[in-house]
Amino acid sequence: MSQSTMTSVRARAAGDRWEGDLTRRLLASAALTTEDPGSRIAPGTFHDWFAEQARAHRYVTSRVGFPALSGWRFAPGTGNLEHESGRFFTVEGLRVHRDGGPVESWTQPVIVQPEIGVLGILMKEFGGVLYCLMQAKMEPGNIGPLQLSPTVQATRSNYTGVHRGRRVPYLEYFTESGRGRVLTDVLQSEQGAWFLHKRNRNVVVVTDEDVPVLDGFRWMTLGRLGRLLHADNLVNMDARTVLASLPLTAAGELPGTADDAFTAALRRSMDPAAGTVHSMTEILSWLTAARSRRELRQERIPLAETARDGWTTESEVIRHRDGEYFSVIAVDVRAGNREVSRWGQPLLAPAARGFAGLLTARIGGVLHVLLQAQVESGTLNVAEVGPTVMCLPEAGPDTPDEHRPPFWDLVLSAPPRSRRLDVVLSEEGGRFFHAVTRYVIVDAGDGPLPDVPRDHCWIAVHQAAELLRHSNYVNVQARTLLACLSTLWPTGRA
Amino acid sequence: MSQSTMTSVRARAAGDRWEGDLTRRLLASAALTTEDPGSRIAPGTFHDWFAEQARAHRYVTSRVGFPALSGWRFAPGTGNLEHESGRFFTVEGLRVHRDGGPVESWTQPVIVQPEIGVLGILMKEFGGVLYCLMQAKMEPGNIGPLQLSPTVQATRSNYTGVHRGRRVPYLEYFTESGRGRVLTDVLQSEQGAWFLHKRNRNVVVVTDEDVPVLDGFRWMTLGRLGRLLHADNLVNMDARTVLASLPLTAAGELPGTADDAFTAALRRSMDPAAGTVHSMTEILSWLTAARSRRELRQERIPLAETARDGWTTESEVIRHRDGEYFSVIAVDVRAGNREVSRWGQPLLAPAARGFAGLLTARIGGVLHVLLQAQVESGTLNVAEVGPTVMCLPEAGPDTPDEHRPPFWDLVLSAPPRSRRLDVVLSEEGGRFFHAVTRYVIVDAGDGPLPDVPRDHCWIAVHQAAELLRHSNYVNVQARTLLACLSTLWPTGRA
Repeated sequence: MSQSTMTSVRARAAGDRWEGDLTRRLLASAALTTEDPGSRIAPGTFHDWFAEQARAHRYVTSRVGFPALSGWRFAPGTGNLEHESGRFFTVEGLRVHRDGGPVESWTQPVIVQPEIGVLGILMKEFGGVLYCLMQAKMEPGNIGPLQLSPTVQATRSNYTGVHRGRRVPYLEYFTESGRGRVLTDVLQSEQGAWFLHKRNRNVVVVTDEDVPVLDGFRWMTLGRLGRLLHADNLVNMDARTVLASLPLTAAGELPGTADDAFTAALRRSMDPAAGTVHSMTEILSWLTAARSRRELRQERIPLAETARDGWTTESEVIRHRDGEYFSVIAVDVRAGNREVSRWGQPLLAPAARGFAGLLTARIGGVLHVLLQAQVESGTLNVAEVGPTVMCLPEAGPDTPDEHRPPFWDLVLSAPPRSRRLDVVLSEEGGRFFHAVTRYVIVDAGDGPLPDVPRDHCWIAVHQAAELLRHSNYVNVQARTLLACLSTLWPTGRA
Repeated sequence: MSQSTMTSVRARAAGDRWEGDLTRRLLASAALTTEDPGSRIAPGTFHDWFAEQARAHRYVTSRVGFPALSGWRFAPGTGNLEHESGRFFTVEGLRVHRDGGPVESWTQPVIVQPEIGVLGILMKEFGGVLYCLMQAKMEPGNIGPLQLSPTVQATRSNYTGVHRGRRVPYLEYFTESGRGRVLTDVLQSEQGAWFLHKRNRNVVVVTDEDVPVLDGFRWMTLGRLGRLLHADNLVNMDARTVLASLPLTAAGELPGTADDAFTAALRRSMDPAAGTVHSMTEILSWLTAARSRRELRQERIPLAETARDGWTTESEVIRHRDGEYFSVIAVDVRAGNREVSRWGQPLLAPAARGFAGLLTARIGGVLHVLLQAQVESGTLNVAEVGPTVMCLPEAGPDTPDEHRPPFWDLVLSAPPRSRRLDVVLSEEGGRFFHAVTRYVIVDAGDGPLPDVPRDHCWIAVHQAAELLRHSNYVNVQARTLLACLSTLWPTGRA
């Protein structure tokens, strides 16, 4: 055997111990929910810094007509909206055939972006505590316009320099090997209702190197970040999905003490040895069966062909004749501190707010979440695991019974003390214009459980963490909810 | 908490114990490599039974022109070959853009079959030993024409009755819940060079019910089946992929004794506690990085558009002007014991035999396999993990150096005593005509290891088993090799 391989095998044994130890250190960082200590690490308060970032740079996003959109055009023949470089993304037509749903077949516009981008959080230890390097980032579709973003949030066109802008800072930690230790690294899907087969690389790296903190960036503990997840429209979708993939599970005792039965059950559920309703084999089989029961046929078609289903392209907007679903608009953007300081791009603007609710229950003293196998227009592999209830647009009190999804009433009628989360968060502002979702977590307690339809399944928190290590199991809304849930174990409430 | 859920949590604790116990029972079955005992379970010898099956039924497959192909047509406009029901599968065009490869962009015919079929093996215990119910099944593209198949091998069109034939026997064990215990249940990919995004449900169920053995079926131990994997063109692709997904790993001592250093290292590598070169996090990150480094753009196009790259549709064949790659032909089939007794269908006929080689090494006394991140035209998620070396057509001694894939020489020049497997096996005879691959496993021993390019990675057997629990990690050729490898631990040699 070669010497180098022997070394690798030995290093791996040490790495295993470090991995167990690391989980403890992640949890310790997650338990620090108050303002970051140490003026050298992150001077001033978060809110002062964030307000200063907003003041220091000027961002102007103005709506323009498509003809004024520099670099973009409607392709002759297909009517697809595309960039003249052939890169970034396109808005095309999609024909969907999905058996078993209320509507079996339809066409719609869809964003096609086959390239895989990087969503990366860089971590580093200061004074024995792990910190995440976060960014106050402007995106044209943001409500804000700043939101808290991962260290790196870059499409492949960004970081391979198609837009001829400044290089993406800190990218090398995620694309060069040996710059740190990888904690998680997985391709995850994004909104299946609006994207065809979109996925991004979700990656977290811990480095020992000296990391200069550029303007617009700040070191924060996991706990502080978790706290900010409970504020409306502050932590962006990209940060949430990366946070969701962190392995926040641990055997045995966690830091701090549980302050109620919910927190106690949540802490127990983070232990991989905790009892569960289903085994992992059963959960994987449940999802495989759901994927096999249905058929999802997806066919890319010219955008022009969606006209027969009521979609029209006008000079300022692509929209549906009923004003429903979403429209595609164009914006001109001026930003002081982005890779390029002025650009134009299309954005998808949802017609209404979405809703994503997660029901939890304490089963045998272990917190379980009720997840649903969900088929969306653009899902890569038929179905992914989504929230207990997800609707777009959000159902309301006037929605007729037959259009209310299962568990919607149960989640919405829960008494306030059962509601562990109720927050409005933004979806990706680089593609979507003011796209917001109301995220709610409701604890059903330890009383009688509702009947579970065959597309739903009770899953323990450590089992969800296991699913999150792999691609295309958990959809982006469920990932936000799980990221939020994992902020509740230190104290149980926002 | 409801009474029923309490019961579920308790049952799960018992289930966990059963799962550990089950792995032992699977291994015990895999250790029984000789003729099945017990005339009640499976009378006579396997070879007598198999020969009798071949004699008892008459199968005639004749090549016909496309105009004589009942139910199939070339669609006007696109030239796609399709069934008049709109079901089964189509032969369409595919435009591939793949950066980084020797050829960056091309078009080709491809089989599109979005529906997900069932490949299921039913198991049952007799006299304390687990048996698999296998089938001697005719497929029109088989060399044989019989090969040993899973209990159920059915497309969705088959089992939902599109072809109005007989129902698929034993299907209910895999589509109805509660008919047995699921050991594994996962969607797995098939040939990415010929299929676009094809996947099937690979499922194994152990039942306690009385199972009538229909004509053409036979109970066999895992070990006996494993032995037959070493015979040319006998165990079909569908059986091999299901066998690969069985959890053949176990902590601690295995039945029998290792008869050499290779077998000892293989047995050690089946223990999830065995030391490995890389952690699972590192392996998942390696594959994620490989998927992100590259771009794979796949676009379905009319078959007629592949003409510009040299593909022509003639009355009897779709072929490439150079006679390379593959052709698509049509056959008329008469079979006595299939769901329908006469039908016509297209088949894809490769121009040459393929090659798939697996290099193993004993690293720190633990057997590792060298796997490669592989991008193919029809891969669902950019890349899957394939064999150490895979080429289609097989490279030969006259192949110029620059066209020989990495490790091809190393695998082929290995001395006979290092060659643990060398067998020619058939790919799926329901879609491919006489498609065969030479599968070779070579042990590099415990000497100096070759340099590993960044698309390759050393992976322990228990880690490969973990990857096999999930969809789209391990490609179909690597699954065959891993199924073959797992037959070598009881004795080390075919």
